[in-house]
Amino acid sequence: MVDTQGGLTPFFEPRSVAIVGASAVPGKAGHELIRNIQANGYPGRLHPVNPKGGEILGLPVSASIAGLPDGVDLALVVLPAEGTPAAVRQCAARGIRHIVLMAGGFAEVDDAGTRIQHELIEIVRETGVRLMGPNISGHTSTPAAFTSAFFPLGRIRRGTVSIVAQTGNFATHTMKYILSAEHYGVCRVIGLGNKVDIDETDALEYLADDPETAAILLYLESFKRPARFLEVARAVTRRKPVVALKSGATEAGRQAAVAHTAALASEDRVVDGLLRQAGIVRVADYTHLLIALKALSMLPLPAGNRLSFLAPSGALLVVLSDLCVRLGLEVPPLLPENVRRLQDISPPYIRMRNPVDIWAAATVRGVEFGYREGTEAVLRDPNIDAVVPVLMLTKEIGVPSFDFLLDLRARYPQKPILVGFSGDKDCMEQCKAYLEPRGMPTFSEIEYPFIALSILVRCARAMARAR
Amino acid sequence: MVDTQGGLTPFFEPRSVAIVGASAVPGKAGHELIRNIQANGYPGRLHPVNPKGGEILGLPVSASIAGLPDGVDLALVVLPAEGTPAAVRQCAARGIRHIVLMAGGFAEVDDAGTRIQHELIEIVRETGVRLMGPNISGHTSTPAAFTSAFFPLGRIRRGTVSIVAQTGNFATHTMKYILSAEHYGVCRVIGLGNKVDIDETDALEYLADDPETAAILLYLESFKRPARFLEVARAVTRRKPVVALKSGATEAGRQAAVAHTAALASEDRVVDGLLRQAGIVRVADYTHLLIALKALSMLPLPAGNRLSFLAPSGALLVVLSDLCVRLGLEVPPLLPENVRRLQDISPPYIRMRNPVDIWAAATVRGVEFGYREGTEAVLRDPNIDAVVPVLMLTKEIGVPSFDFLLDLRARYPQKPILVGFSGDKDCMEQCKAYLEPRGMPTFSEIEYPFIALSILVRCARAMARAR
Repeated sequence: MVDTQGGLTPFFEPRSVAIVGASAVPGKAGHELIRNIQANGYPGRLHPVNPKGGEILGLPVSASIAGLPDGVDLALVVLPAEGTPAAVRQCAARGIRHIVLMAGGFAEVDDAGTRIQHELIEIVRETGVRLMGPNISGHTSTPAAFTSAFFPLGRIRRGTVSIVAQTGNFATHTMKYILSAEHYGVCRVIGLGNKVDIDETDALEYLADDPETAAILLYLESFKRPARFLEVARAVTRRKPVVALKSGATEAGRQAAVAHTAALASEDRVVDGLLRQAGIVRVADYTHLLIALKALSMLPLPAGNRLSFLAPSGALLVVLSDLCVRLGLEVPPLLPENVRRLQDISPPYIRMRNPVDIWAAATVRGVEFGYREGTEAVLRDPNIDAVVPVLMLTKEIGVPSFDFLLDLRARYPQKPILVGFSGDKDCMEQCKAYLEPRGMPTFSEIEYPFIALSILVRCARAMARAR
Repeated sequence: MVDTQGGLTPFFEPRSVAIVGASAVPGKAGHELIRNIQANGYPGRLHPVNPKGGEILGLPVSASIAGLPDGVDLALVVLPAEGTPAAVRQCAARGIRHIVLMAGGFAEVDDAGTRIQHELIEIVRETGVRLMGPNISGHTSTPAAFTSAFFPLGRIRRGTVSIVAQTGNFATHTMKYILSAEHYGVCRVIGLGNKVDIDETDALEYLADDPETAAILLYLESFKRPARFLEVARAVTRRKPVVALKSGATEAGRQAAVAHTAALASEDRVVDGLLRQAGIVRVADYTHLLIALKALSMLPLPAGNRLSFLAPSGALLVVLSDLCVRLGLEVPPLLPENVRRLQDISPPYIRMRNPVDIWAAATVRGVEFGYREGTEAVLRDPNIDAVVPVLMLTKEIGVPSFDFLLDLRARYPQKPILVGFSGDKDCMEQCKAYLEPRGMPTFSEIEYPFIALSILVRCARAMARAR
């Protein structure tokens, strides 16, 4: 295999994988990991390793690393911290040059752990193997139908956005949340953990040239090689949007980061400058990372920050106008002909403008008619780059077919449409369940489509500046 | 009826109600309004008024206002703007002194509407009737099982927080959202609309002495009598928490407010100062109003801002520590004995502190055991005023009984417990459906329990300052 991507390709396209510390006991990491791989339909070969031998989940077990067959290009090591240095040496001796270490209990805990971590650094230097981890919950590569996550997940949906995370969360609870609550998928998910070898810069470098990765999300608690990171990131952000949550922005956060991944976070202003120079869009809240993930998975980047939104309430128009200003989104006047179109569909006691008060039109002429005609009148306006229809849905008034939104997207493919909601929760769920599997994002919280759009606008600008 | 509350009591405890503009046609406001009243089990008398006479929804129709029986103490007028001045005069002549005007089409639309609005102001001055509206979607009073909302809502749950809103949203879509998505109820909901007579100050004055109202939420686009508002609000906030969203904070928002309720919003710094002096806690986002509503409905105010939280992930500990700093919440060290209790339930490779990394304890010793023991260890600490357990829930690991949280609340009743989630969406819904009807709030978005707590902390401080 020719590997132009920093030698990391076997982590993401392995042909044959050893699981060191495989277990026959359900619930153990060394067992659930194999179940996850099987649930994802991984087509390559799997080789459990356990001194007891026998069979695990239908796979013959090798009693030792030395006894593994030829051709294994990736080892997943699910042993406690103390056992990892020996396992890594044995893998290297057996010719396995790509290794994922799951265990915690290193520098993030105590001096003994720090010593083991230094030993691993030495072994990497001596042997030239590539290590992911330790202290991670696995990694994922949906294009290869592969994962090393040991948290019970089942099949992980494929998507176009890759994630680099200095936390196991994106291989565990957050992935579970995405799989149970959302409809988008992910591409590669890379855990960094304590970054004994592979760090955020290596990961970014790999994803830069990964044809499966259209956009990148980062969760970071520290930078291992800031200068090189900047260099690599500047090249990436010319071609792919990159969004980051860098935590440890406060002293309290930094203390928590030391306990988590032994990360020594820098002064936050320095981080801010670094990310800006790198062309990376920074977000502050965890949920905003998920909003970015959804938006980048489903929408094109807008040509600019000029938004139109339709809302079924005067108060929402006022509140959301305030929000747009705070988020740097413009809500410009429409061309007179499009204002006339809007006025044509509305009773005269509403004066139509941008933002659009669609309540009366939707009430008097029907929810579907009002939103369809209203959304089209603003989508066609050359001064508008993106549209947020805030749908008013209740069973009593009647839930429309949502196909009109898919039709409009087909006719205005460059303009992101982000669906928001007001009204009945069950109807929102119904709309989401219809639109999202068809690739159109919806947002449960009234502020979220606007936050999503502002992230996309910032991505487009950062990419333009990086070029 | 002795009315010490500014003469507004008949709006909220009416004995006999006329519906002027009642309609036999389903979907019309004058029809849905009666259906809503009936759905709420209103025990008083209802008198539809329509020149056609006959019967509507089982009620005999009066052909005119003049023909109404004696004793009607509230009229709901569901006529177009042009028809309202005559209707108000006729009500006054018939001795009905409390009138709600639903119609839009006044000063918020055009000069003709402005003239009608001035005429209404004149009639109020001449006759001394009290007017709510125009341009509102109704009002609600759950202690009286009464509503004038014409948006199809069905039965509105009773609660302890009252809402004063310069928008119809809290009588329509937002109420629908609350009823379909949440488990808390509301007390009084007062629409202000164009405030021809009753304004936010009157409403606040009424709620100040309302024994059913424990806390107050305001949505405002302008202040009609700022000096008097300040005076009334300062008296209220000594006894009841008041949270406000004042929109029109930006020029774009102010333009939208003119179109909505003809409101002329003031310079935002002035508004900020006014609210602060009044002891009112200001929030910026619409969703934060709903978060405040839920928190004030279900929780006591905390004694201070000292929080402990438990999260199932190192990254969440870091991110949420940052968030706490931004929100003004302290996450102080625990007493050594309570740190020991935490360490006792956790594997040694996690160093327990506040905030609490509960992942290993919950994984190794069971989700229920980990969260129960962990939450108790921090609740009992005298340095802790409130606790956020961020529950990690998935079907595969097993969903615990949530009764332990209710038990802990019973044992530490002064310390708010706000439940957050990580993991499987279906399990979150299951937990919410169990805890919330039992009065314990849960929050779908990871940031929300912290935002809720910060609002409660600000309320407690504002009340202490006002005293």
